[in-house]
Amino acid sequence: MAFSKKINPPFLIIIGFAIIIFLGTLLLSLPIASSTGESLGFLDSLFTATSAVCVTGLVVFDTGSDYTLFGQIIIMILIQLGGLGFMTFGVTTAVLLGKKIGLRERLLIQESTHSMSNSGLVRLALNILFISLLFESIATLILTINWYEEMGPLKSFYYALFHAVSAFNNAGFALWPDSLTRYMGDPIVNVVISSLFIIGGIGFIVILDIYIKRKWQKLSLNSKIVLITTGILCAAGFLFVLVMESLNPKTFGDLTFSERLWASYFQGVVTRTAGFNTIDIGQMMAASQLFIIFLMFVGASPGSTGGGIKTTTFAILILSLSNIIKGRSEVSVFKRTVATDMILRSLAVIIISLGVVMTSTLLLTITEHSLQRDFLEVLFEATSAFGTVGLSMGLTAELSVLGKLIIIVTMFIGRLGPLTLAYALARRNVKPNIRYAEEKILIG
Amino acid sequence: MAFSKKINPPFLIIIGFAIIIFLGTLLLSLPIASSTGESLGFLDSLFTATSAVCVTGLVVFDTGSDYTLFGQIIIMILIQLGGLGFMTFGVTTAVLLGKKIGLRERLLIQESTHSMSNSGLVRLALNILFISLLFESIATLILTINWYEEMGPLKSFYYALFHAVSAFNNAGFALWPDSLTRYMGDPIVNVVISSLFIIGGIGFIVILDIYIKRKWQKLSLNSKIVLITTGILCAAGFLFVLVMESLNPKTFGDLTFSERLWASYFQGVVTRTAGFNTIDIGQMMAASQLFIIFLMFVGASPGSTGGGIKTTTFAILILSLSNIIKGRSEVSVFKRTVATDMILRSLAVIIISLGVVMTSTLLLTITEHSLQRDFLEVLFEATSAFGTVGLSMGLTAELSVLGKLIIIVTMFIGRLGPLTLAYALARRNVKPNIRYAEEKILIG
Ligand SMILES: [K+]
Ligand SMILES: [K+]
Repeated sequence: MAFSKKINPPFLIIIGFAIIIFLGTLLLSLPIASSTGESLGFLDSLFTATSAVCVTGLVVFDTGSDYTLFGQIIIMILIQLGGLGFMTFGVTTAVLLGKKIGLRERLLIQESTHSMSNSGLVRLALNILFISLLFESIATLILTINWYEEMGPLKSFYYALFHAVSAFNNAGFALWPDSLTRYMGDPIVNVVISSLFIIGGIGFIVILDIYIKRKWQKLSLNSKIVLITTGILCAAGFLFVLVMESLNPKTFGDLTFSERLWASYFQGVVTRTAGFNTIDIGQMMAASQLFIIFLMFVGASPGSTGGGIKTTTFAILILSLSNIIKGRSEVSVFKRTVATDMILRSLAVIIISLGVVMTSTLLLTITEHSLQRDFLEVLFEATSAFGTVGLSMGLTAELSVLGKLIIIVTMFIGRLGPLTLAYALARRNVKPNIRYAEEKILIG
Repeated sequence: MAFSKKINPPFLIIIGFAIIIFLGTLLLSLPIASSTGESLGFLDSLFTATSAVCVTGLVVFDTGSDYTLFGQIIIMILIQLGGLGFMTFGVTTAVLLGKKIGLRERLLIQESTHSMSNSGLVRLALNILFISLLFESIATLILTINWYEEMGPLKSFYYALFHAVSAFNNAGFALWPDSLTRYMGDPIVNVVISSLFIIGGIGFIVILDIYIKRKWQKLSLNSKIVLITTGILCAAGFLFVLVMESLNPKTFGDLTFSERLWASYFQGVVTRTAGFNTIDIGQMMAASQLFIIFLMFVGASPGSTGGGIKTTTFAILILSLSNIIKGRSEVSVFKRTVATDMILRSLAVIIISLGVVMTSTLLLTITEHSLQRDFLEVLFEATSAFGTVGLSMGLTAELSVLGKLIIIVTMFIGRLGPLTLAYALARRNVKPNIRYAEEKILIG
């Protein structure tokens, strides 16, 4: 084990990321990072650095025009560090969970990562870095070729690299002020970018499980649930956006049928964590915006670059619900039983996350009171920050100083909170407590 | 047992209430119910009848001026039938729960109701009616005396009776267009009306438990949890409204300190279910409105005239959360263990309720799209309908035909849904299912 028993690992991780964010803030507030030659200021630099390290993608500036090449490269490095770091932390948590619970799952993850017992965290991080660079390189190559004619050799390579890093790490930073709107109908950009964030959002453990096992039947329960839930959420997002926005002249009014399909596909699958957009989120139907809030809250999968409560947590919720209603005493799926303990932990993650989003929203309604913006924009912004998604209905740039601080804290908690909570719950020794007689409480 | 095994009781109850609502609709759509002498129309009469029978209190008309005395008395009778019926159904569910689970609780409820084994549902309903009439009579007497000088003998008695029935049954119908705003600073109206809806919202079982036991230590776990949770929620509502609205010139601007205290007290304790207001809800701070949405969702206690997910369900959620985080394997409170089964059922009630509110909200954003109202108003309206609260930020009167139908269905589901669900879960025989090996899923 790489962890010392005397040091509290989540504490170390939190301090580590805080230091990276602080260094990033300093670099981004240098005059050479700003295209005007004047410092962009501490608070806004802190906002951008936090957004980059937490791979959120909410921005108070236009990354492509307000930052110099130096500033943009700093942002790209922060994204890569953040994505790598969180994925490593997520996988470590998973291994510890495995260690505590069962030999079978533990062996699977150790086998997948060739890991903990031999070379510890560094080797795991290197493995994850290798996977990241592999996918990012392939994507950079394809995007460079795609953009070569439009931009020339250097710019096409740089834009390809930046967006590949941003997409694989689910960061959602883009070098165009309207994100990827101009490539809404471009199949290559759509497919490459969305493949990157879907793979990044499925996570290291599942990628390796698929690579090793090859066959569906052999996949772990975790992989099966991640893949099925991701598939269902992507399909639901696609269909919902397609149906609702077809009624909306402000977004789909001038689009061809093929553009509508691409836009629905992209916005349907991107919303759970990646934060790019090809249509204007603020112009969408309120129903679509509400559905996107739901998708952002659910988020990506454990041990991935994405945020949210995680697909597996959501799946456990739905499975338990269906089993409780059917009157079954135990939750089972794919001929495996889900421990009651797991269900209660999922419940804790969901309720605490809901509490964080609602608290952040509540505080923003107070600090941004004078803006008189629609409540949905505030809820959207807070959920996007918590789920480290980075989509916005347009509120970000108008936030007050207090509002920016609330979003900064929400991004940080959203990125580290559920992971830390899962980690803490996984490592805990269950305290025996006095067993009292049961007594009924009435519900409903 | 009064229930035949061949007939599905929740089905009977649902049909019974649907018939009462239908008859109420017919009577309210008669020309003699309308102050203009022309029928108020089927849809709006259905809306009013559903709102009255489900003791919700959302209104598309001004009860005091658009309805004749005949119409108002029909509404009062519908409220009394609805309140009595749902309380009886709630207590029956509780008795069945008791029967299935433990001798101790069962004996307590049977003792309290002198009930099931002897004379069945009719006697139980008569007991509940007696309690209702007792509290309503006392309140009518006090309010008649209070309003005598202002209104004269007949009107003061009628107004006292109507508002006493409306308050005890947590219906929230008032004969003034601005609800009880004119009595915002009146101590007698504040204390009498709020006592009625607090007692009504605590419910029959707890009232009888207090009457029989007298001492805190002897109260059932259910009563203790109901009383403590109700107390905490009332205090939180009072403090939140007081602090937030003190910053708001639109509501508290011209008020004296004593008026502010009364208004905060009333709005803080009323919001979980009763639906009266003494300040304009639409003018409150967004933060207060959001907090009221939370209180409306939680609602009153089981076996009462109020709605929502219920105070006990909320308490179980918070207790489980705190125990999971502390790493305890079991949830215990007041030296009693809460069965895991109960926790899972509470979870089911909460998640399904959240699903109903969000679905209703989503549909309203589509049907009321052209109104361009703030999202918070829509969420507020849907939660108020679901929790059978009856507060509104002002959307009710502007609803489209489809919007009214959505609210009618939401009120009906909100009133019968959680009860029926709790009943169904309580009566269920847990099916044995194949016990598979446990396998870990990653959460967070
Ligand atoms: K993101
Ligand atoms: K009500």
